[in-house]
Amino acid sequence: MKYVFGIDVGGTTVKIGLFSQDGTMIRKWEIFTNKEDDGKHIIEEIHKSIVDEGINLDDVLGYGFGVPGPVVNNHIIQCVNLGWKYYDLVGEFSRLVSNDNIVVQNDANVAALGESFKGAAAGKEDIVMITLGTGVGGGIISNSSPVEGAFGGGGEIGHMMVRKSNGRKCNCGSTGCLETIASATGIKKEYVEMAKELNLEAPLNKTGRVSAKAVFKAAKNGDKLSIAVIDRVSYYLAYACHVISVITNPEVIVIGGGVSKAGDFLLSRIQKEFKEYKFIAAQTTQIKLAKLGNDAGMYGAASLIING
Amino acid sequence: MKYVFGIDVGGTTVKIGLFSQDGTMIRKWEIFTNKEDDGKHIIEEIHKSIVDEGINLDDVLGYGFGVPGPVVNNHIIQCVNLGWKYYDLVGEFSRLVSNDNIVVQNDANVAALGESFKGAAAGKEDIVMITLGTGVGGGIISNSSPVEGAFGGGGEIGHMMVRKSNGRKCNCGSTGCLETIASATGIKKEYVEMAKELNLEAPLNKTGRVSAKAVFKAAKNGDKLSIAVIDRVSYYLAYACHVISVITNPEVIVIGGGVSKAGDFLLSRIQKEFKEYKFIAAQTTQIKLAKLGNDAGMYGAASLIING
Repeated sequence: MKYVFGIDVGGTTVKIGLFSQDGTMIRKWEIFTNKEDDGKHIIEEIHKSIVDEGINLDDVLGYGFGVPGPVVNNHIIQCVNLGWKYYDLVGEFSRLVSNDNIVVQNDANVAALGESFKGAAAGKEDIVMITLGTGVGGGIISNSSPVEGAFGGGGEIGHMMVRKSNGRKCNCGSTGCLETIASATGIKKEYVEMAKELNLEAPLNKTGRVSAKAVFKAAKNGDKLSIAVIDRVSYYLAYACHVISVITNPEVIVIGGGVSKAGDFLLSRIQKEFKEYKFIAAQTTQIKLAKLGNDAGMYGAASLIING
Repeated sequence: MKYVFGIDVGGTTVKIGLFSQDGTMIRKWEIFTNKEDDGKHIIEEIHKSIVDEGINLDDVLGYGFGVPGPVVNNHIIQCVNLGWKYYDLVGEFSRLVSNDNIVVQNDANVAALGESFKGAAAGKEDIVMITLGTGVGGGIISNSSPVEGAFGGGGEIGHMMVRKSNGRKCNCGSTGCLETIASATGIKKEYVEMAKELNLEAPLNKTGRVSAKAVFKAAKNGDKLSIAVIDRVSYYLAYACHVISVITNPEVIVIGGGVSKAGDFLLSRIQKEFKEYKFIAAQTTQIKLAKLGNDAGMYGAASLIING
């Protein structure tokens, strides 16, 4: 039997997935990301971990990687969180495992590939994934390939400016980016600010525990302010989906990341707002919740090898 | 010597370009588009015209086509203006010329391909073209291939909703689409409406000849209202460029179409507004004027054959 590895390198842990040739996940495990010495030990430790698991490297067809930074034509431009700059992961890892079939791709793109491989958009060639976590990320798949962009900046949906006036400052230097509203941090800030703006009672402020999760919980329990916050977040997410749908015309937009655990409560609101945009080609785009959770990156990384 | 044809099928005329293998245009001519009988005579007349020009079909490597409608995987879905629905142009034309190397693509996409082949973005793999004419169209090239979208609706930039309140009705059924502001028709309407909104004198209204061209001319001559109109049009075009730059991260955005003949007067304003968006990956995108004019479609159609 031949195997494929799908490896998702994150800032905290590396997720390693062992797959069969047809894309079935056989086993998965994690190791800590060793960021010492500009991240030069990371791939040695991945290699060691695979050998320690008792896998015969002669049976491995190839290794797919997802990394947290821009990638163009199988070259990593930069992964700030790992200390990698123009890092030759492909060449270095190839020598360690004596295998030339190494493919690397941006982590948001591999998550999108994962959902189009075995997840919410399985079998679809044109999809977009929006990941709502601490920040807002995105991956665009066109004709089964990631849209990397000229400088590896394709799919940076979080930095779409959506609020033209009174936008909050974003880490990127701009104001009013989608990330300032629809990320976990954005939802929290929206709650605090909307309480003043709408002059509504803000029960969570008193608990000292305002978080995206708490806002969703309160909204589901009928808290007026929290519902107003989620409605606004949904409005802007629907706008982003509209813009994406007229630009790359995906068959499915997949909403993932921690914030998407709010489930149908969030999804149904985004879908309702999205229907307000009448352009026909865009209306054919479906919006769905992600299915693979934290495994999406491993599936997508494996698909880089399996689907060539 | 071997030849390639680049054929741009429009609603009024068909532009036929004869190219050498390396993409040099040797000759070009036009024939009227015969839309009778659901457009069934169009390709016969293209074939006849090529034969009449004395080209030996045995010397032709292939024929590239641009058509005014959505195309997916070399299949035309619909060309409303021509009467074509699921029309098998590739099969039919292949029989007429006894050649299997026929490729068809949407006209906005071939114009973008043309500019990336021999025009303002020559040699660039990731570009976007925005065409400002009667409407606003767009073509997105990622990694040298058009982003067709799931239903052939990729690059429908004109239907990006950019004005959330007080937007004008668009033909698509939505309101506030970019096309309602930045097309030739949009600029004309903007002039009439902004005169009331800003309570400014509208010298062109008295002439009865308000047109995009006249507005640009008046603006260049210092007319306050016309300058305000062009500033607003530039503001929205810059916003569209920003959104595109974070989604597909092109190296160059090319502005073409009749309205772009306003030249640097328009371009410099769009560039200035675009610089207001600080996200770094997007700032690397350049905005340029198209170079090939009405020939872009023929060049792009020829490139479908030349670049495979």
